[in-house]
Parts: sequence; C-alpha cells; structure tokens
Amino acid sequence: MQLLKDRILRDGYALGNDILLVDSFINHQVDPEMMRQIGMEFARIFGDKGVTKVATIAVSGVSPALMTALELGVPMLIMKKEVSRILSQELLQTPVHSYTRGNDYLLTAKRCFLEPGDRVLFIDDFLANGEAAMGAVRIVESSGATLVGIGSVIEKAFQPGREKLRTLGYEPVALARIGRLDEGVIEFEEN
Amino acid sequence: MQLLKDRILRDGYALGNDILLVDSFINHQVDPEMMRQIGMEFARIFGDKGVTKVATIAVSGVSPALMTALELGVPMLIMKKEVSRILSQELLQTPVHSYTRGNDYLLTAKRCFLEPGDRVLFIDDFLANGEAAMGAVRIVESSGATLVGIGSVIEKAFQPGREKLRTLGYEPVALARIGRLDEGVIEFEEN
Repeated sequence: MQLLKDRILRDGYALGNDILLVDSFINHQVDPEMMRQIGMEFARIFGDKGVTKVATIAVSGVSPALMTALELGVPMLIMKKEVSRILSQELLQTPVHSYTRGNDYLLTAKRCFLEPGDRVLFIDDFLANGEAAMGAVRIVESSGATLVGIGSVIEKAFQPGREKLRTLGYEPVALARIGRLDEGVIEFEEN
Repeated sequence: MQLLKDRILRDGYALGNDILLVDSFINHQVDPEMMRQIGMEFARIFGDKGVTKVATIAVSGVSPALMTALELGVPMLIMKKEVSRILSQELLQTPVHSYTRGNDYLLTAKRCFLEPGDRVLFIDDFLANGEAAMGAVRIVESSGATLVGIGSVIEKAFQPGREKLRTLGYEPVALARIGRLDEGVIEFEEN
C-alpha cells in the first residue's frame, strides 16, 4: 500500500535495527483518515472470504480493525490482555509472551462472541515475532470459529512471525513489509 | 441519542445497581456502524469548538474517539495506562484510581502530541466516578493545550463524575445518561 509506505518513510523512525517508531500516526497519535484507507484496503483484500467478524488485540489493533469492520459491515471483537487468569467458563484465554514489553499476558475473549459459524478476520497493527498473532489463532480455533485471514498493517519481515503462522497453515497479508531497519534507515521488501 | 438508548435497552444489561454491561456492542465486541453514528453525533455537538485533536484513554475510548476524529478531520491521541512511572522528559503522566478495576495506573501521553496551540476534545466510553476524565483533564492542562470539550458515550448520572468535572469548570456531554440501574433494570435521565 503505497500511501502507507510513503507515510512510514516520512513520519516513521527506525530506532536501531529492531524498533520502528510509528507513534505519530499509527499507535499513539492516530491518523483516522489513513486508518480509513487501511480499512478499505483490508476490506478489498479479504472481501470475498465471507467474514462475519473482525478480531483484534488491544490497544493498537483497534483502530485498523474498527475501520476494516466498518467497511465489511461486521462487528469487531477486541481481545484483551489480562495479567492473571480469570476463572470463568465464559472466557477463552491463552498465554502470550510479549517481546516488545518483555512480559507475559493472557489474551482473553468472551466465548459467546466467537461462535462455531463465525468466519473471523484477524487484524493487528504489527506482525513481528508473531506471538500475539499465534495467540489470536489459538483463541479463534479453540472457539470452533474459522479463521479466514490474518492482516497486519506493518510486518517486520526480518522477524519470524510469518514463518510461525505458516506452520499452522496461515499466510498473513501485510500492507507494508519492512525488510531492514537501521538507525534512521527503513527499507521495504516486496510482497 | 435515541439510537444509542434503544440499543442499550435492547442489548445492555444491568448487573445490580452499579454495573451496566454493554460489552456486546460498545467495549468488547464493538458495532462499527453504531460507533460511526456516535462519532457523527459528537462531531455535530462539538463541531464549532475549533477542535484540533481528539484525545481518549485506552482501550474502550478508542472506538468512539476514532470515529469522532474521522468526522472532525483531526488526529486522535490515545492516552495509555502504565503500571509504573516512566522517567522521561518526553512524557506527561498523572496517577488515576480505577474504581472499576480496583487498581491505580499512570495515565500517560507523549508531550510532543499535545501542544499549547491544540484545542482538545476528550472522548471516552463511560463517565462514572470521573477519575479517568479528571486524569485526562490534568494531562491536557499540564501540556498547555486547551481542553474545549468532554464527551462520554454513556454517563452513570448517579455517580459523581459530572460534579467533579464541574468543579474544574467543565460541563461534560453524554449521549445517554443512566439515572438508575438495578438487576435487569435500566432507567435513563433526561439531559
């Protein structure tokens, strides 16, 4: 998505060879019009998958997921990050390790919002180590719903997220794939 | 906002006299089209205030704030809840007590995204005890920006949030004001 790549080059910043700072338009301050374009692009890509629900993870996934769900005309489900296990038959929970924050959390969703007939599209802001996405896969699969697609706004293609998802049979779609980062340097990789 | 009140009566549920469960369309599963209508309503109400930025608090404020910012054509700023103080001149932080979760957190925003010339509209899903909104007021005021409005999707009018904000000179706007809750009973109060 050229609009997004241009914006990353203009307003993003690479902190060393690992961290891409996009907090002026993606995940702290958010550009709503850019998010609308991102939602339209995901809706175009996944429009023929019979999506009944868009799922995402709090906090940064909410903006692109909401705009995608708006375009597709389906509800959005926000999976939350809980610090401790909540004993309830009503909840689906799975442990996830965050490399960004260096901690662990329990990805959590209410069971009643993921039904066996649902066709779920998972949307998040970043695909990097893939731990969050793998957690989302486990939550959706354990509910009996069908995961019909995985979309990331930005993929750090030099990290193993895509490979991990492939081992489960999923091929994620990213709107901008980063091939290399270095202090002040951002290089894209073709899809 | 009649559409919202009708939806609360249809899909909301009062757990005792304090908790209003709206997690099937507002804050866990989200109805994007209803959020778009909410954004349009806030944009109509605050459209003459010269808003340059919409601010909100993660997680549940993001959906209504994003749609409001989209309608107003301005960026959205997501204030985060951090568990411990981060020592940085770049950040604005203020302690907030959560009655809902029974814990304390540090409401946090990057200083560079709130400038003295900014005219900020604060949007959140709930106004209840007002602690989160009061924290947002402190963050915005400490940045030198001007807080031009406070909008809540739902107000629990039997709790002291509105009174607290009034003591600082702010009159919040709520799209649905709940006057009384009881197990299975939801009563609105007129604006």
